[in-house]
Amino acid sequence: MKEAQALAQALLKGDRRALSKAITLVESKRPDHVREAEKMLELLLPHTGKARRIGIAGPPGSGKSTLIETLGPLLLQDRSKLAILTVDPLSPISGGSILGDKTRMEGLAQHSDVYIRPSPGAPGLGGIAARSYEAMLVCEAAGYDWVLLETIGTGQSEIAVAEMTDMFIALVAPGGGDDLQGMKRGIMELADLLVVTKADGDLLSAAGRIEASMNQALRLMRPRRQAWRPEALTCSSYEKKGIRELAQKIDTYFTMQAPYRTEDRRLQSIAWFRRELQKEIEQAFLALPGIRPTLQRIEEKIGRQMSLPSAEAKKCVAELFAQVVGRN
Amino acid sequence: MKEAQALAQALLKGDRRALSKAITLVESKRPDHVREAEKMLELLLPHTGKARRIGIAGPPGSGKSTLIETLGPLLLQDRSKLAILTVDPLSPISGGSILGDKTRMEGLAQHSDVYIRPSPGAPGLGGIAARSYEAMLVCEAAGYDWVLLETIGTGQSEIAVAEMTDMFIALVAPGGGDDLQGMKRGIMELADLLVVTKADGDLLSAAGRIEASMNQALRLMRPRRQAWRPEALTCSSYEKKGIRELAQKIDTYFTMQAPYRTEDRRLQSIAWFRRELQKEIEQAFLALPGIRPTLQRIEEKIGRQMSLPSAEAKKCVAELFAQVVGRN
Repeated sequence: MKEAQALAQALLKGDRRALSKAITLVESKRPDHVREAEKMLELLLPHTGKARRIGIAGPPGSGKSTLIETLGPLLLQDRSKLAILTVDPLSPISGGSILGDKTRMEGLAQHSDVYIRPSPGAPGLGGIAARSYEAMLVCEAAGYDWVLLETIGTGQSEIAVAEMTDMFIALVAPGGGDDLQGMKRGIMELADLLVVTKADGDLLSAAGRIEASMNQALRLMRPRRQAWRPEALTCSSYEKKGIRELAQKIDTYFTMQAPYRTEDRRLQSIAWFRRELQKEIEQAFLALPGIRPTLQRIEEKIGRQMSLPSAEAKKCVAELFAQVVGRN
Repeated sequence: MKEAQALAQALLKGDRRALSKAITLVESKRPDHVREAEKMLELLLPHTGKARRIGIAGPPGSGKSTLIETLGPLLLQDRSKLAILTVDPLSPISGGSILGDKTRMEGLAQHSDVYIRPSPGAPGLGGIAARSYEAMLVCEAAGYDWVLLETIGTGQSEIAVAEMTDMFIALVAPGGGDDLQGMKRGIMELADLLVVTKADGDLLSAAGRIEASMNQALRLMRPRRQAWRPEALTCSSYEKKGIRELAQKIDTYFTMQAPYRTEDRRLQSIAWFRRELQKEIEQAFLALPGIRPTLQRIEEKIGRQMSLPSAEAKKCVAELFAQVVGRN
């Protein structure tokens, strides 16, 4: 536990290596590391909650990294510090990713007030790291004023990111022929800001059309937050157009949302608790004595198409919990 | 229970209205309906497992419906019947979708050997219906030779669909400028066939480049199934190009995979059981006596940033299950 304390102290002083070590500790699954990480996080907790938390969602190819690379310097005024948590997604089968991620955000990576941390995607969630929330807390304790949480587009991870950030920005790139290429339905209702990227060259007019139709659609929707009406805007990282406007929008957003900050923090921590709870419940169930042979027996029957998966699942859980409740 | 029997009998005789009624019953959450549906499914179970199950994934705008509309007639040879299960995704916030879905697959919809069924997306999964697996069984029992299970692109739902089908086809549309527009990483490793859509007009050469780079990448990957090496191909629903080749590939695939059908069915039913189990466990936990006030107390502490969500989740579940185990 002494190490947790030393690490927390170094991190609170702004030691960058301590920050990296702390996130690594938080992400470790070794039982002693888990305990150490908890101890450390408890020490850091009083120093968290001060950053502006932004979730940025967009599928690969939508220009996320390029946009962050261009937008980043504009957020770094008045000596502020920026942490960027990215996800290196695990594929569900081989566990590896086939497309490299090496040359992203080269400029920002060299900036002394910028911290970029890629983490592996969580198995169940895909587009988000297993310990994103904790990593965000650690960055806040280390004095970062902005935390950008990046996610690739999968429905579940987008909801998770929207739940734990103050502002959720969704990126869409214009596609060929179809105005809503790659646009997922739910995202429009999650986003506080919709950014149509690549608004330059051949795609300029398509980007404009998408922006207009999105703004039209947004007008029909009930806003998700108080005091803020989501809107769509276009930008070009390549021509550096619309980036300053985006930075200004972000600033306006945080000014407008400031009164709700405490309530946002409360809801964010509870949302994360519920996710953690779900994970723990499942693990605990599978650790119950006698459960594995029971499951094996059921799966054998199901595998021979001799009974219904849904009915068996219901029966199996009901019996187990009936026992539990019966003993009270 | 008499109704379940009558419904099952009508359905097995090929009554189309009975099929629709059966799926509605399966999707209902009313406790008496759930029991009735289970009874019916048990009667149908011996008649299931004979269709060729195909999962088709692709984000909105990737040309899924247009492709199915063009491909469908080619699958309908030798008096075979085709069922298409589509998803009308729920948005996580308002519960409604903003873009209409009315004029999709108009031609196929009028075909007497084609059954098209849109179902609402499951809250947790987004791109798949809560009872997709059961709906598929019902279509099989009703004598459909092909079942197409459509999903919009969210990581979790894609995995679920790949798990419950024999063949998983992923669609990608060429984007402007970026070759891998909207392409998700994991999907390449899930897909048995990658279809680059919209290979016509301005997008023709881009589609060809994507196809080539995908085939290159696929060569580096370990194939997921025995006797089959996934590949990418292009097609144009608009110019009706590449559709016949796609139908032939599908046919070849099923011929090659035929020896593994029994094993596939076994794994598919078990995968669905595990998903159902997870859902049931969580529901049962939340129904335990005394759990709600406990959770409320914890959430209040967490909401005031006085304790760590992850640590609290672990403690809460551990204590509860320790009690359970301790009583054995």
